[in-house]
Order: sequence, then structure tokens, then C-alpha cells
Amino acid sequence: MSSNPKQGLKVAVIGGGSSYTPELVEGFINRYNEMPIRELWLVDIEEGRHKLEIVGKLAQRMVEQAGLPIDVRLTLNRREAIEGADFVTTQMRVGLLEARRRDEHIPIKHGVIGQETTGPGGMLKALRTVPVILDICRDIEELAPNAWMLNFTNPAGIVTEAVLKHSKVKTVGLCNSPINFQKYLAKQYGVSEREVLPEFVGINHLHWITAAYVKGEDKLQEMIGGGKDYSATNVTAFDWDPDFLRSLGALPTYYLRYFYMTDTMFAEMKESLEKNGTRADVVSRVEEELFELYKDVNLKEKPKQLEKRGGAFYSEAAVNLMHSLYTDRRDIQTLNVRNGGIIDFLPEDASIEVNCVVTAQGPVPLPLQRVPEHIKGLLHAVKTYESLTIEAAVTGDRGTALQAMVHHPLVPSVSVAKTLLGEMLEANKKYLPSFFKQ
Amino acid sequence: MSSNPKQGLKVAVIGGGSSYTPELVEGFINRYNEMPIRELWLVDIEEGRHKLEIVGKLAQRMVEQAGLPIDVRLTLNRREAIEGADFVTTQMRVGLLEARRRDEHIPIKHGVIGQETTGPGGMLKALRTVPVILDICRDIEELAPNAWMLNFTNPAGIVTEAVLKHSKVKTVGLCNSPINFQKYLAKQYGVSEREVLPEFVGINHLHWITAAYVKGEDKLQEMIGGGKDYSATNVTAFDWDPDFLRSLGALPTYYLRYFYMTDTMFAEMKESLEKNGTRADVVSRVEEELFELYKDVNLKEKPKQLEKRGGAFYSEAAVNLMHSLYTDRRDIQTLNVRNGGIIDFLPEDASIEVNCVVTAQGPVPLPLQRVPEHIKGLLHAVKTYESLTIEAAVTGDRGTALQAMVHHPLVPSVSVAKTLLGEMLEANKKYLPSFFKQ
Amino acid sequence: MSSNPKQGLKVAVIGGGSSYTPELVEGFINRYNEMPIRELWLVDIEEGRHKLEIVGKLAQRMVEQAGLPIDVRLTLNRREAIEGADFVTTQMRVGLLEARRRDEHIPIKHGVIGQETTGPGGMLKALRTVPVILDICRDIEELAPNAWMLNFTNPAGIVTEAVLKHSKVKTVGLCNSPINFQKYLAKQYGVSEREVLPEFVGINHLHWITAAYVKGEDKLQEMIGGGKDYSATNVTAFDWDPDFLRSLGALPTYYLRYFYMTDTMFAEMKESLEKNGTRADVVSRVEEELFELYKDVNLKEKPKQLEKRGGAFYSEAAVNLMHSLYTDRRDIQTLNVRNGGIIDFLPEDASIEVNCVVTAQGPVPLPLQRVPEHIKGLLHAVKTYESLTIEAAVTGDRGTALQAMVHHPLVPSVSVAKTLLGEMLEANKKYLPSFFKQ
Amino acid sequence: MSSNPKQGLKVAVIGGGSSYTPELVEGFINRYNEMPIRELWLVDIEEGRHKLEIVGKLAQRMVEQAGLPIDVRLTLNRREAIEGADFVTTQMRVGLLEARRRDEHIPIKHGVIGQETTGPGGMLKALRTVPVILDICRDIEELAPNAWMLNFTNPAGIVTEAVLKHSKVKTVGLCNSPINFQKYLAKQYGVSEREVLPEFVGINHLHWITAAYVKGEDKLQEMIGGGKDYSATNVTAFDWDPDFLRSLGALPTYYLRYFYMTDTMFAEMKESLEKNGTRADVVSRVEEELFELYKDVNLKEKPKQLEKRGGAFYSEAAVNLMHSLYTDRRDIQTLNVRNGGIIDFLPEDASIEVNCVVTAQGPVPLPLQRVPEHIKGLLHAVKTYESLTIEAAVTGDRGTALQAMVHHPLVPSVSVAKTLLGEMLEANKKYLPSFFKQ
Repeated sequence: MSSNPKQGLKVAVIGGGSSYTPELVEGFINRYNEMPIRELWLVDIEEGRHKLEIVGKLAQRMVEQAGLPIDVRLTLNRREAIEGADFVTTQMRVGLLEARRRDEHIPIKHGVIGQETTGPGGMLKALRTVPVILDICRDIEELAPNAWMLNFTNPAGIVTEAVLKHSKVKTVGLCNSPINFQKYLAKQYGVSEREVLPEFVGINHLHWITAAYVKGEDKLQEMIGGGKDYSATNVTAFDWDPDFLRSLGALPTYYLRYFYMTDTMFAEMKESLEKNGTRADVVSRVEEELFELYKDVNLKEKPKQLEKRGGAFYSEAAVNLMHSLYTDRRDIQTLNVRNGGIIDFLPEDASIEVNCVVTAQGPVPLPLQRVPEHIKGLLHAVKTYESLTIEAAVTGDRGTALQAMVHHPLVPSVSVAKTLLGEMLEANKKYLPSFFKQ
Repeated sequence: MSSNPKQGLKVAVIGGGSSYTPELVEGFINRYNEMPIRELWLVDIEEGRHKLEIVGKLAQRMVEQAGLPIDVRLTLNRREAIEGADFVTTQMRVGLLEARRRDEHIPIKHGVIGQETTGPGGMLKALRTVPVILDICRDIEELAPNAWMLNFTNPAGIVTEAVLKHSKVKTVGLCNSPINFQKYLAKQYGVSEREVLPEFVGINHLHWITAAYVKGEDKLQEMIGGGKDYSATNVTAFDWDPDFLRSLGALPTYYLRYFYMTDTMFAEMKESLEKNGTRADVVSRVEEELFELYKDVNLKEKPKQLEKRGGAFYSEAAVNLMHSLYTDRRDIQTLNVRNGGIIDFLPEDASIEVNCVVTAQGPVPLPLQRVPEHIKGLLHAVKTYESLTIEAAVTGDRGTALQAMVHHPLVPSVSVAKTLLGEMLEANKKYLPSFFKQ
Repeated sequence: MSSNPKQGLKVAVIGGGSSYTPELVEGFINRYNEMPIRELWLVDIEEGRHKLEIVGKLAQRMVEQAGLPIDVRLTLNRREAIEGADFVTTQMRVGLLEARRRDEHIPIKHGVIGQETTGPGGMLKALRTVPVILDICRDIEELAPNAWMLNFTNPAGIVTEAVLKHSKVKTVGLCNSPINFQKYLAKQYGVSEREVLPEFVGINHLHWITAAYVKGEDKLQEMIGGGKDYSATNVTAFDWDPDFLRSLGALPTYYLRYFYMTDTMFAEMKESLEKNGTRADVVSRVEEELFELYKDVNLKEKPKQLEKRGGAFYSEAAVNLMHSLYTDRRDIQTLNVRNGGIIDFLPEDASIEVNCVVTAQGPVPLPLQRVPEHIKGLLHAVKTYESLTIEAAVTGDRGTALQAMVHHPLVPSVSVAKTLLGEMLEANKKYLPSFFKQ
Repeated sequence: MSSNPKQGLKVAVIGGGSSYTPELVEGFINRYNEMPIRELWLVDIEEGRHKLEIVGKLAQRMVEQAGLPIDVRLTLNRREAIEGADFVTTQMRVGLLEARRRDEHIPIKHGVIGQETTGPGGMLKALRTVPVILDICRDIEELAPNAWMLNFTNPAGIVTEAVLKHSKVKTVGLCNSPINFQKYLAKQYGVSEREVLPEFVGINHLHWITAAYVKGEDKLQEMIGGGKDYSATNVTAFDWDPDFLRSLGALPTYYLRYFYMTDTMFAEMKESLEKNGTRADVVSRVEEELFELYKDVNLKEKPKQLEKRGGAFYSEAAVNLMHSLYTDRRDIQTLNVRNGGIIDFLPEDASIEVNCVVTAQGPVPLPLQRVPEHIKGLLHAVKTYESLTIEAAVTGDRGTALQAMVHHPLVPSVSVAKTLLGEMLEANKKYLPSFFKQ
């Protein structure tokens, strides 16, 4: 890193008004000795000004309470936040929760899984988000060419691949799913997190775990045999079919349920939609409560309730990564990076989410010990959809968007794809200028 | 070829009692000058004895009428037919039409496409057929090690890959779909068949046409733009969505409708099932009529009615291929062969169906000019299913069979896969000894 | 082909004053029925005006004698020759025989093989030729964008790769070595040329023959065991070491002697240089004699003496290729084309010389049955040198040129490379403006 | 690791009578806290009994002096040493220094580089060593199937590849060259070794350094520009040609001098041979002096003079590696491992020497940031020679051995190869039973 360690780092958080921000601030406080932050810039857009102020003040109280000289700045001016930054993180939602609501709702209406990061919902989120992210990249290229961009914005795999393909910004995509599994594994076997090493094969939100080393011994067969399964806390946990699991020879991660249990998941979502509204509605209520808490001037640390929000350990993952990049730590983390030849049947310039060694030069993906034959087709199918989606987002070409939608495994036919695409593009018109230019 | 051309060739037709045989005989008669057949052995099993005799006698009358010294032999003894043969063709249906009926019926019952060569139906057909084919290969390895095995038995791609992987027999898989398109293209543009050259990308029954040269000029865009489409005669023709076609940039062949129009195709099949029974029932009636005709001792040539049967130009494709292998003709034919590195993301030992130059050493697949990004995922997904199916057929392993079924794009979930697999294996118990061994 | 067959083709021969031209004209005359030439333009530069006139008049007499309406035009204006051409052939020597003399002489002086197409001599020839060829390409791109450029100019592999990499011109590189072997094989076994099919593995002038089918049977082991060897007529034939040949399991072609018998070849060249001057001197004398003959107004056909010149069957190879491109003949020819993935360890955009099927769209290289492990290193080493040479030729960068020279297997060390490069660049200063720009 | 850490590890050192052993013992003593050795078995053959006793007693005195409970055992019985071992190291010289003398001498006589690990000398060393190593592997497979075999025996790349291809033993090959460069780099820039990270591209003793990170910044251009170069202490240091270095864009390691400066190296070796005898003679004298020292009962630590021997930091590298394997340390080390797809043009099962992350499961090679085009040919050529040498060693086939020799870049022709091979096989007859079986 080019920064002078004595002076400390400058970090810009795009979408700084997010309810997750206190977790990130907590992380910076805890690692201050190894990685001193000089300036922390929280950036948001006009629509987020109110939240930004609430969260920003909490952040300032947290830093003060910790007695650290971190300068927390709030701004609506993205460019001044980015200028000279060492790290830029992005955690944002183009179109706000309202757009997510539509992403979840419209597909369900047509009999298709409606989900924030995969399927037609994820696709529309990508179409809205990629142009904004690339716009931010233009600023980084100009104002902070040596900065690392850490991307948490979903769909993280697509967003990361878009940046890798269409900008010169150094970027890494991050998901909390791997760190959650690592913690789960360590807890399950009563060892420290440092003593476990799972092997992840796949792409963001389409992951299989093919080995689970605990103190050097692979416990995968044991885990598969018992039908145990790792589940994020924001969904009902339920068991995989044990015959399926044994014959798969790998542990599917949570989002694979949309593909392997499409019927059940669809039914659940539909029912839940009728009862509780979309997941967006639920999140919306949780966020309101959180911001009420954040307003309390006596609150000077991250409130427990944030953990219910669903993004557990995001901040830990992010701070871990910055720490390794900054100190050339060379530890192993599971990250979204350029494929190179790691998964040999996917394009070299695709993003994948695999174990990497993180050096000061960035994450170096590790060759995989084993890619089960079973999963290659599904993995390739979803990556095909992702790459087409990026192309559509960048060009605004409806034909490419149609191909992306048609070739998504959750979309049952060309005619459903066409209907969904038409309706969803229209509903997102405001955020998709390139699709509606004259 | 090792045969002495003066003495002529020995050809063994496994499943010789098939209603298609007269077409093959007609082909041999027409090409006699370039490729003299000395002995033509029609082989069948005990259950097929009656049909074999009817067809065999017709074949003998046809040869006599043509005044050619082809010795047509009928036998139930496969080994004597194979011994010393130059060519062995396989065209058979393990479990007869009754099994096909089940392959079509059971999936429909569970809301899944029921089809002879793809989906769960095609999978069960493969599980029944592969062990029988490999058994025939053992005979060929012993009794006619230099013979070429020409395989028309469906699912032809899977059967060919099974032989390539599990025997030393020289084999090629054949489908009539490419020759039909070639004829269609020539007719459409008013040129000779020799003057057209389409490029096929994919695997058996999962094909995209990516170029259509007519006298050296590519007419593909013209064909796509007009929404024209090629269709086998055994199905209702209907137009592809023109936006889809244009954005695909390739012409999908018939069987892709099961994947791209799953909902419509399912509805049609269900309706047709209720009205006319399965396609197996229809074929059954056609065959009965054909055999009535074949019995007529005054019939001395292939009857016109055979063309309604649905396998148009199979015989022409087969005789074409034998001709090129025998005379080192080095022309271009579209065949099922070992991938090598032609489609770079599929396994080297997978079968693919692409343009090949046919020399005396066998077909050499031609590198593809272009594999559209759009189709890679779907193609990989279906090939994954195919390779798993072969492994299941050879091992009798239910776990592998479950993985094959789960990862077929037409099967909506693990639970449907499990139900279908259980019911279909049970219904085919008689033909699947390796799945039911103690 | 876009030309109207009724009107016939326009062919431009760059370097039309070459002594080879009568062979080419003879070829056009013999194939006139299948491939009617309307206009044949012979182009040369000012220094070649005299030769052009002699050869051009002979060509006109040949055409007249044959009674064909081919319009033979002589010009120093390359652009009018190229405009609207269907085929452009290049057969030229930048720097004339004087430059070849230096290419052969200087390396010998420093203890290194001095040869026209390989080693330091071939490298300097490439540095002189590539810029001129690319300049011609600019004209073709502008004036005849649909033309095929057939390149015979040596080093043909490098020149072809340069065009493939740095222009949009459709090109094929041609050498007479494969057609010579084919004729040799046919004669050796008393069959027609159509009945043999050798498999060539490698790049121009660095070729191994790995199969030699004669009527469908591979005769390679027979040929290797007997120590037979194919040799061009312009060199002393001598036998390969039989143990070497057997363990190699392939037949090395002529130019491999420079690599496998470096010491003997060097000694021979040195001795011959002292006795007869360089090969350039010999050729110089032969050409003088030929042009004396060509002047004879009674000569109306290709004189027998041309065969001594060393380029036997060049014209046949060229006319063969045009014929196949023009008529979509789809026969197999051995040509210099883009690698694609055919030789999997070489770059995709490298040129290789392998069997191709020639369609109207161009030559499609055939996958190789076998690339012996033994030869991979040497093949890769020479291709590395070739690609570096192209880069040096295009950029005029001395560092790249040094790397090319250092990594050529015939150059023994960095210090020899540096000495040779310095001296040879200086000697070719006139033809290498990009290396000597201010 | 399966050993119970409380009980400590068992290590077997094959070739334990080597003069290097005290360095290894010193390493074990220094790391005892992190990696406690319970039993250290020093094994040798009958001819080495005398040396084994001298070195073994020194080892025992060193351990006693350190006050550690390491049980040092001396044995001629390899199997008892291997049984149940956690680590087996091999450091041996089949044929002793006498054989090395011949490896160096005979090639020089025929005008070819005579060197212990590369060229014809290295090849004969490999032919002698591979069968013995594979014999040891048979014992490990039977008696210590979970052991890691750490191989220092030269030529380490070939020996490691032989084990990877022909046994099930878990193995890593080790050279001191990378650790030396790392130390050099750290010293040069005044930082700790932990703060540097060079990138090595290549195979054992054929290495290019393509990046040299110091505190995260790449200093390579700086190093190349200055013409600095790293050199092992057992050779005269001299500068690379600066133009060559700059245009290469990488730092060649020591052994590349044999390829890039063949003429100079040959002249030096020849002169030195005449003056001082072979390098084997020099080593012989150094070893005699060392063993005189080792005999001294008052010597209780590694003597300084050992550093003159030329194998500096071998022991540190070895103990580092064991430490990481034992503790799952996940640090980066440069090791000889299976290629996988890391260097994409070399066979997957070749050994390469690159940066690896060392986990408890073994070293995982890191993808390379850059493989310069310039070096690919030479690298492939030498690897071709290596793989052929292994095949020759395992089969005893003279034809394969001839191909290996012919295709080594330092061997100028088939005839020289044949002469050298004949003479060198004969001279090593005693150690090459498979080449001389009836």
C-alpha cells in the first residue's frame, strides 16, 4: 500500500447511510492498532441524507467512545470522499427497498422465484446497479487510482465481474456467507476459526463446499452423512434430502435451494408474501426499528439488534480483507475475484468466489482440489446468465437482456422470460436510462 | 478398410426387424456400384422374430428385384451376424414400444416433459439401452475388431459416448436431423445438397445452427430474421418467437423446444396424450400398418408410407457414412463423435454432434467457427446430465442416477427427481438388472 | 466467392517477375475449365522491371498458345493490380538475392547455421519482409477486401502469422514441401495422389509427419523402420540415424536437419560456401540461365529447366488452393493457418502448418490425431522465436529482436546473438527503416 | 497431521550420512517448540557407514548440548527408519562423488556442458537416482503411507515428477535457490524476509523471477535496470548482459547461465577442469575437511565451514516446510509440486517450481501473474527433456533415453547425443540395471 502507515488510511463508504455501517465502524475500532484509519468518509445520495445523518452521528459517538483519532465525515459529495482514498467500499441499493419489493413481487406473480440476488429479481437489481457502480469506478480511476474497491453490493458476483471487465479499478467482491460457514464449522467442532479451512467451489450465491478441513482433517463426509447443513439466519432452516446430499458429495450452500428445491421455495415465498409481504417488507420494518435505536444519543456502540438484520459478519469480512491487503498478511479468505483459469470451463474474465491468499498485491485465487462433475452444468448455466446480464446492463440491449433471462435456469420458457422482462424493465424505467434512450 | 473390395462388404444390422430396414436396404441397392454389399445380416431378438421374418422377406424381394448378388440373412444369433462384419448398425428399442409408453407417460403425470430421447424419459431409455449396447460391443471387440459400429439407437449421443468411454469399438453416432436440415436448406434456396454447408454446434438433440452457407454465402441472418424454422415432420411446426431468434443469433433445432418452450410443449403433450395417447401409441399404430404392407409378397420396394414414420433419411445418412468410410471420401457430414477439444468447455471424452470430415480412418470433427456465449450454460448442463446417466447405467448406482435426474434442466427439483426416479426405475425393473442386484 | 463465374477471376501476382511465374501460368491454363481466369496481373518493383518484362511476355505467349482468353497484364503499379482482385499471391524477396547472400553468409562467419528461412538468416528475412507484406495488406484491405491473399513468400509461417495478427486480410500461407511429400508417398506405393493422406504436425519448415495413410492404411512404421526419408531436390539427400528415427516415431521433414544435425549441416554449409559460394550464389546462376531461356520468343510453355530451381510444385499447390476456395471443393490440403486450439500448447493466434479442409469460407484446420511428446519443446521454442520476430518486425524494437535471436535454438548464447544481431541489422539497414528511425 | 503432537514427530533422513545433516539437526533444534521431533532416524547404505557414524555422533552431541529429548538413531536398515515416520527426507547421491565426476567429465570431452543437474550429466544422475527413489517410495507406501516425502535429491524437479507420476507417496521437492534469493532480496532492501515476496516462474534449476515485491512494491525493474544479479556462492558471480536483461523483463536465476551463456560457461568449466578437476573433485576435498571437523568430540554445533559447501539454507528450507505442513501455517514457499494447470502449456502432471501456500494438506501452487512469452519455448524444451528422462529411467528404454538427450537444448545434434549416451550409459552400467538387463 502506498499510504504512509504513520498517517493512517482514508476509507470511503459509498452507501454510508446503510444500517450496516455501525458494524463496519466497530470493525475499524477493533483493528485500529494493526490498521489505523485516519479518515472515514460516509457518502450517500440525497434520498439517504436523513439516514446518513443518524448513522453518521452514531459512528462519531462510537469513535469518540473508543478514544480513537478517526475522523468521521459525512457527505453527499462522492468525489471528495473518493479522492485519495485507500479503500472504497460500496454497499448500496439503487432504487431503495421499493425496487427490491418489485424484484421479489413480479416474478412470483408469474410463477417464478422472486429473490433479491438470483433469478429475474437479481437480474433487474444487476441492471439497475451495474451502471451506477461503473460510474463510481470512473471517479476512482480519476481520483484514487491506487485504491482498492471492496464491493458488498448485491448481486456481488455480477457487480464484481462488471468492474473487472469494464474498469481499471482494483476490486474484490465480498459476501458474508463464507465467513459464516467458517464460524459455524469452528463452533461445530469446538476449534478456533484459524483451525478450519473449507473449500468453496463456485460463484457468489451459487456455492458448493467440497472439503471442510478441521485441524487438517476433512470432515466433509461426516457432515454430509449427518445431513447437517449450514444456513444463514434470515431463512427458515430445513434439511436437505440425505440421499441427495450423499450422492452429491458436497455441501450446497443456502442459495442453491432456489435451484434444487424450486417448488418448495416458490411455495414458501408465495405463502410468506401473502402473510408478511415480501422479504423487502420485513427488512423495511427491521430497518425502521434500527434507525429508531441509532437515533438515541446515548447509544455509543453497535446495538445487538443489528444482528437480526441478516448481514451478520459482513463487517468482519470487510475489515479482515482490508487488514490483509494493508499488511500483506497472506491469509486465506473466500472472495469474488477474476477466474483466471481456476474453474477451467468458465471464461477467464468471469468472477468466481473461491479461496484466495490475500497479499499486498491483492487476492490470488487458489487452484481447486476438486470440482464435482455433477455441478458443472448448473454452474456454467448461471454464469452464462450473469455474463449476459452484465453485457445487457452495459449496452442497454433488450435482446441481450432477453437471452440472459431465457437462459437463467429458474425461468421456465422464452414466453415467460419475455413477459417478465417487459414488465420488469418498465417497472424499473426510472433506473434504466440505457434501456429507454431514444 | 481391410475388406477386399472385390469380395464386397459384410453388414450386420442389429434390430434388423425394425420397420426402418427397407429404407436401409434401398440405400444399399442404390449405392451398390460404389459400395458392394456381399452379405447383409438382419439380427433380432426372440420377441422380434415375427417382424424380422416379414421385413427380412421384403428385403430379399427388394434385392432380387434389383438383380444384385446381396446375400440377405435373417438370424436370432447376434454373434454369427457380427463375426467378421465390416459394419455393424444398431437400431433397437430395449423394452419395445411398451417401455417408450412409460417413458412418455410417467413424467407427464408428475408435471415434467415426457419424451423419448430427452428428460426423464430419455434417461430411462439410456439406462435400459447402454448395458445392451456395451454387451454388443463385447461381441464386436471379439469377433469383428476392425468393424465400424454405426449407432442410430436413441438417445444416440449418450449411447455413442457410452461406447467411446467403455469399449474399444470404433463407433459413430447418427441422427437424421442434420441431413434433414441440409435438404431443407438446399430446397429453400433452390440449390443442390452439395452446395450447402450448415454449421451445427452442440450435442445430439441439442443443437444450434450457427451458419448456413449456400454456395459459399452465409444465409443465417436471413433465415433468422424471417423467423423461418426447420422442423421434423413428426411434430406440429410452429414459429419461434422472432425477438428471441434474432437475439439468439442462431437457429435452434427442433428438440430445443423442450427447453425453450417447456410450458407450451408440456401443455401440448398432455393434451395430445389425453386425445391420442402417447407418441408411442401413435407410432405403434403406424408400425402395425407398415407391417401389414410389408407382408404383401408383391411388394418389392420400399413403400411410400414409411416416410410418415418419422425417421426420414436415416438410411440415406447411414449409407452416406458407410460410403465415405469405405472409399475415404473425405466429405463433410454431421456426426456424433468424441469431442477432443472441439467444444472446449465440455470434457474431452464427451460425445458431440458436429461437422466432420469422413476419411477412411473415421470422422475427424471440424473446429467450430463460433460457439455463441448464450448457449454454453444449457449445453453444459445437458451434457452433465448425459455423462452422469452413462455412469449410472454402467454402475447401477442410484445416487449417480439421482444426480443425473436432478441436474437435468427439465426436472424442477430434487424431490420431483427422487419421486420420478423411484417410480421409473421400478417400472423398468425387468430391463435394469444392475439397479436391482442383491 | 463473390465473383461472377461467367466473368472469371482476377488474380494479382506480387513479385510477378519471379522465375517461378511460368509454373503458375501453366497451372492456370490447365485448370481453366474449372477456374477461369479473366485477368492475370503480374506486378513487380522498379528493380524487377527487366525480369518482369521477360517473364510477362513468356506468360502472354503461353496463354496465346493455349488459346485462352486470359488477359495477362504487366505493371509496376501494385494498387491497380490489387483493385478488385479475387486472389493476390505474394512471392517476393525484399533485398533481392544480395540480401539472401548476407543472410547465409554472416551467421556462418560466427559459427551459426546461415539459412534463408530459419535461424538468424530467416529472422532477418522476416524483419525485411513483414513490413512490406503488411503494406500490401493495407492496399488489399482498401481495394480488394474480399480477396484471398495466398502467401508463398518465405519465411511463410512468420509472414502468414504477421498478416493474421496485424491485418484483416483473409490469408493462407503455402509451402511446396507437403505436396512434394504427398507425391513422393503416392509414387513410393504406386497409388494415385488422391489415395494418400499424410498427417503433418508443426509449423512451416518445422514439420514432423506422424501418419502416412495409403489407401486407408498407415505406412509410417514401415517408412521409419526402413530409414527412408523424403528430401527436397535442392539438397543432398542423406539418411537419418535409424535408431533416432525409430525412437522418434515420426518422420522429420527436411528443415529439421538444421536442428537435429546442426554440426553436420554447419560443416556442409561452410564447405559448400567455400567451394560454390552461398546457396544464393547458386540460385543466382540458375536464374540467369532461366531468364536467358525465357527470352526466347519461340518458347511458349514452361521450360523443363525450371524444375531444377528448387520450388517444384509450388504452382500446383497454389492453383489447387485457389481451385478449392473458388469451388468450395472441401478437399484436404496442408496449409499455414491460424492455430485456434489445434496445437494446444501454442498460442491461439500463432500460424501452424497442418492438414485443412478447404471450403469456400477458407481452410479449416483438422484436429491432430497425435502430437508426439518428444517434439513439443522444440516446436514451442521455434514458435516463440517466430512470434518475437513478428513483434520485432512490427515495432522495430531491438530488445525484442534480441530476445527472438537469443531464444532461437540454433543460436548458442546471448553474446553471439548480440553480435549477430548488431552486424545483421546494420547490413540490412536499407530495408529496416523502423529499426533505424530517429 | 496424524501424529499426536504431545508425542512428537518421527523423521527419517535417507542419506543421513551426508555432510549437510548437521544443518538439518540445527534446524530441528531451533524449531523444537513449534515442531517437537521425537525420533530422528539417520539412514545410509553400507558404503556410507563410516560417514554416517561420524555425522550421527555429531548430531547426538548437538541434541544433547541443546538439552532436548530428540532420540537420534543411526541405521543401515531403511525400512525400520521409514516405518511410521511423519516425514521422510531424501538427500543422496547414487554412485557417490565418483559418478558425479563422470557426469561432469564425459560431456566436456565431447564439447558439451558437463554439470551435475542439467544437461547430459543431470540426465545420467536422474537415470541412476529415479529407480532408487521409487524403491524408497514402495517402502513408504507400505510402512508410512501418511508420511510426507521431502526430496532434496538432485535433479530435484525430475525426481519429484517421477514420484508424482509413479507412486502414491505425498511428496514435495525442495531447492535452496528460492530461499537464497529471498534472503538476498531482504538484505538488499534492508527489510525482514517476511516482507519480501518474489514470484518464481519455471521448473527446478530453470527459473525466472518475474516480480520482486518488497513491502508490497515491485522492485524488479529497478533490479533489472541495475544489472544486479543473484548468484549462489559456489560459482563465480558475473553480470548478465544489461540489454539482454532489460529486454527479457525478468531476472534469470543462476542455472540459466548454462543456456544463455553456453559458450562462456563451457570455456570456464573446461579451464577449471584442467586446473582444479571437476566440481566433484572440489566438493570431495571440502567434504573431507568437514568430516575431519565432525569427528572432533568437542564439536557440539554446526561448524561455520559447512556454509562453504554450497548448500546454504537447505536445512532452513526443509524445516520451514515441515513446520508449515505440521502446523497448517499457510505461508508462501517456493516448491516443486505438480503443475495442475498453473503453467498452462506444460503437462498437468509435470513438476514445476513455483510459489505455493503450504497448508496441512500440502502445498497449493499459486497462479502466476505473468509468464513472459520469451521464455516459454526454452521452458517447454527442458521440461520435454525431463519428462522423457523419467520415462527412460522407469522403462530402461534406450530409444526414449536417446530422445531425451537429443531434445535437451544443450546437446547440439543427434550424433553427439548418441555418442554421449552410449559412453555414459556404459560408464554407469553398475547403477542402471534396467538398461542392461538381458
